[in-house]
Amino acid sequence: MSSVEVTPRTQVKRLPKRAVYDREQINRILDQGVVCHVAFVVDGQPFAIPTGYARGEDTLYIHGSAASRVMRLGSDGIDVCVTVTLIDGFVLARSAFHHSMNYRSVMVLGKARLVTDTDEKRHALHLFTNHIVPGRWEETRQPTEQELKATSVLALAIEEASAKVRTGGPIDDEEDYALPVWAGVVPLKAVYGNPVDDGRVLDGVTPFEVNRLSRRGD
Amino acid sequence: MSSVEVTPRTQVKRLPKRAVYDREQINRILDQGVVCHVAFVVDGQPFAIPTGYARGEDTLYIHGSAASRVMRLGSDGIDVCVTVTLIDGFVLARSAFHHSMNYRSVMVLGKARLVTDTDEKRHALHLFTNHIVPGRWEETRQPTEQELKATSVLALAIEEASAKVRTGGPIDDEEDYALPVWAGVVPLKAVYGNPVDDGRVLDGVTPFEVNRLSRRGD
Repeated sequence: MSSVEVTPRTQVKRLPKRAVYDREQINRILDQGVVCHVAFVVDGQPFAIPTGYARGEDTLYIHGSAASRVMRLGSDGIDVCVTVTLIDGFVLARSAFHHSMNYRSVMVLGKARLVTDTDEKRHALHLFTNHIVPGRWEETRQPTEQELKATSVLALAIEEASAKVRTGGPIDDEEDYALPVWAGVVPLKAVYGNPVDDGRVLDGVTPFEVNRLSRRGD
Repeated sequence: MSSVEVTPRTQVKRLPKRAVYDREQINRILDQGVVCHVAFVVDGQPFAIPTGYARGEDTLYIHGSAASRVMRLGSDGIDVCVTVTLIDGFVLARSAFHHSMNYRSVMVLGKARLVTDTDEKRHALHLFTNHIVPGRWEETRQPTEQELKATSVLALAIEEASAKVRTGGPIDDEEDYALPVWAGVVPLKAVYGNPVDDGRVLDGVTPFEVNRLSRRGD
């Protein structure tokens, strides 16, 4: 279990009891998430763009987004903040003020670089594909050189990173426990529906087994 | 049905066919989301922070976050980008390259202001609470003056806003339809589990009905 550097920028100031710097937990959250939000700045204006991503050991690969357009303008790196957030439940208290959410989120700060090496790009696409569906890369047609060229990938070292986690029930003011109000947690979970084929799947092809997705983030 | 101003900053450059500027659709996505990611800049470093929010007519209220700390340093407004993203499904193609996701997302740009008026703050808390659970505000203890003081709220006009939406199945290259690979969509849905009370709910209090949450975003 390794831990990551805590810098003044990643030190969680608001509600520090919810901060977690442990690297294993950071990896677990990153591996379970589906999309990240990438924040970057253009002419003083911040943007937060949702996009696909995947973790490869100590590197976060981010699927082409507006940020890669910006980077093509000549800079050899761009300051980003990549955030992944999982919502686990609504926390309902007896007072409006103490309502909250259970969640796990990770923030990674640093300078993202544009991936130009073809092998590293292929590696990133491999990770993207299997991040969503374990084993999917191995059963699909691999990218051509043209497709690799057409894909933008950013890479960000997972060095300056922090997690925030809230779990458990509501914490009410002592006198409010006398109120006749229901309080507790409503769990929230992402659930997969029945796969819908696109109408052009060849006869004899095994239907997609949705429980493969239970291995996501393992 | 009104539409919002399309500025060079909100004009979606990548995959413009997925861009939607219609205001009704923007509102629907904002009302269905649970958390937003707020992007802002401190000393040149962008941040993307997940936090609660709610829409009140043409204003987005954002629950206290690091951004409000920054604003207390004296500025009378801060440039933000608030993004709300809903993931609707995994789009599995026959080639790795054409994998995608179905999603709906909204980006709102502008200058956020710190809400200081007590009545507006109470209004925002009302909206936050009922954004998560319709009707919850009316059944819980209302905030005291102290609690209102302890809550930071940012307000952002929903003027410069855009939505991006992808729906439907994978689009494969024509020759790839001959491959014996399953292709289609795996729907993804946020589902509520059974409410878990906190062990201190008074006898006779009606248990929380989880199907109240099906009215979220209506």
